[in-house]
Amino acid sequence: MRIGVLGGGQLGQMLALAGLPLGLSFVFLDPIADSPAGQVARLLCAEFDDPKGLDQLAASVDLLTFDFENVPVESMARLAHQRPVYPAPAALAIAQDRLEEKTCFRRLGLATAPFMAVNSLAELTAAVNSIGLPAILKTRRWGYDGKGQARLLTQADIATAWGQLGGQALILEGFVAFECEVSLIAVRSTTGETAFYPLVENTHQDGILRSSRAPYLNTNLQTQAENQLRCLLTDLDYVGVLTVEFFVKNGQLIANEMAPRVHNSGHWTIEGAVTSQFENHLRAILGLPLGRTDAIGHSVMINCIGELPTLAEVAAVSGAHAHFYGKEARPGRKLGHITVTAADPQALQAAVDKLSANL
Amino acid sequence: MRIGVLGGGQLGQMLALAGLPLGLSFVFLDPIADSPAGQVARLLCAEFDDPKGLDQLAASVDLLTFDFENVPVESMARLAHQRPVYPAPAALAIAQDRLEEKTCFRRLGLATAPFMAVNSLAELTAAVNSIGLPAILKTRRWGYDGKGQARLLTQADIATAWGQLGGQALILEGFVAFECEVSLIAVRSTTGETAFYPLVENTHQDGILRSSRAPYLNTNLQTQAENQLRCLLTDLDYVGVLTVEFFVKNGQLIANEMAPRVHNSGHWTIEGAVTSQFENHLRAILGLPLGRTDAIGHSVMINCIGELPTLAEVAAVSGAHAHFYGKEARPGRKLGHITVTAADPQALQAAVDKLSANL
Repeated sequence: MRIGVLGGGQLGQMLALAGLPLGLSFVFLDPIADSPAGQVARLLCAEFDDPKGLDQLAASVDLLTFDFENVPVESMARLAHQRPVYPAPAALAIAQDRLEEKTCFRRLGLATAPFMAVNSLAELTAAVNSIGLPAILKTRRWGYDGKGQARLLTQADIATAWGQLGGQALILEGFVAFECEVSLIAVRSTTGETAFYPLVENTHQDGILRSSRAPYLNTNLQTQAENQLRCLLTDLDYVGVLTVEFFVKNGQLIANEMAPRVHNSGHWTIEGAVTSQFENHLRAILGLPLGRTDAIGHSVMINCIGELPTLAEVAAVSGAHAHFYGKEARPGRKLGHITVTAADPQALQAAVDKLSANL
Repeated sequence: MRIGVLGGGQLGQMLALAGLPLGLSFVFLDPIADSPAGQVARLLCAEFDDPKGLDQLAASVDLLTFDFENVPVESMARLAHQRPVYPAPAALAIAQDRLEEKTCFRRLGLATAPFMAVNSLAELTAAVNSIGLPAILKTRRWGYDGKGQARLLTQADIATAWGQLGGQALILEGFVAFECEVSLIAVRSTTGETAFYPLVENTHQDGILRSSRAPYLNTNLQTQAENQLRCLLTDLDYVGVLTVEFFVKNGQLIANEMAPRVHNSGHWTIEGAVTSQFENHLRAILGLPLGRTDAIGHSVMINCIGELPTLAEVAAVSGAHAHFYGKEARPGRKLGHITVTAADPQALQAAVDKLSANL
């Protein structure tokens, strides 16, 4: 079975590393010739809106999926015409637009921060009056890792934020003074079979995920999150891995955003769960029975941003597993991650402390 | 860091799959163009005694290792002249020759079956008289998976066995009525650091490994085996993974053979141990701290010989992990393996039974 993947970043690379042992082969399409996935599989170098590249990709494979959701809708439609595409372009279109996404959450009964569409300075002022401050102004599209966002603390910030982001379709969201951030990785197969990983607790800094700890053990929140994701998966007739990031406040979940793909906060599943999110995404799009999602012991995943440790620094820590993506170092860039696993939280913390001291 | 590997079979493929996430790159040399390792990394197609191919391999990498030990000694010497080679050619030379191997075992105090060199029919008759029957006549070189062997049960078999194997350098070994077969996977780094996996219980059929179960919990035998391997590793100044297969009889270990490389009976370590034998082989030859070798729960590895199940048949079993090597099906050929993991032996047996029913 040949799988085509739009986007050849580290997510695609790890998808291939999970699928190659299953006897699957991969073809990636990415505009960047030295993309990480190209180190482990065939890579077609083309823009995401290049019809020739898209057609070549479709012709080389049996079915298609994504490592990157911000692909033009026309490209997805072109591909869907030729081969099965999972998840379906309709689900990706919702995830591409923060307003559509939040509206979808609200329609399905998921709690969200207050939000309003903003298309002018007047609308921004009205939205601030309605939602209150602090609030965050975000582009509806193309934002990731904290890019395309401006924080508003006082009325004076309205003009600054508009100056920074005005002219694009925007959304204003009320600020949530959360206690912690968690995410749920869910997976649904073409057969409708659904599975959920344990909740993960995430730490962000400057809008970029720094670390994820799993399992986050809270039966009540786990049930809440699974019920909400089940609604989403069913409503969207979703196939593949879907991740939703939540804020936790007063024992309740507030849905922040969703990613229609394998997710950075699920990288711990490679060593820390019986079946990785990558293998389960492949099982889902191939209509195979899903693999067990339970955690093996306790894990922390730490992103390597801007620079990598040496292999020796990682290898010196008991239970630490290096994942280096083969990307050129650049400030703010995710170059790799390290997952530390241990049988219990105490041993895990000791290993994480040792790793932090080494780095 | 670029690793060159002589041989591009499934062992090499799994070595690459373990090393790619560590940011390592690989070049394989194999005479067969569609070798499994070529599906995940660069493959130079050349004979193992082709000086041009060997030089090209050496020039492309920083250091060299093997997925296959039966490489001509001259080739190894040629490579060792150009780049570090691990394990050292001297250790491989011993493992290539059953007589050298058994002599080495005896010299270091490892119990073996009685054995004698056989170079003529007269020597075979003398050896049978000395060792007794039943016994096994084996070629000293190039034997694997039960090939190059003849079993002698009665005096009448002497002529038959000689007719079958005579003309090559041979060894006659006394037959051991063993209770079970186990193996120990050991690893030693360039720094001298040494680690041992838990013992594995192996089942062979027609000379081919069928399944491995780990951990084989027997403190006394584990200590015996580790002491013996420690002697071997030190004596050979060995670097990398070394495997010794033992017979168990009356609570004692009888060393049968060694493999100077990652080993089929260690495939369970991919899911079943904290660090896989493949990653630890790489850590060893790179001089990195070795990874933890303890088992996570209980595992059974089952070889797929001659034919593969479907992915769906494997995926239907809880905790079953498919490894398909991408080789063309042929009777008696190892095409893949399945590792089943579970938290306890009872759950493991239930999953293995279900898998067996599916296959």
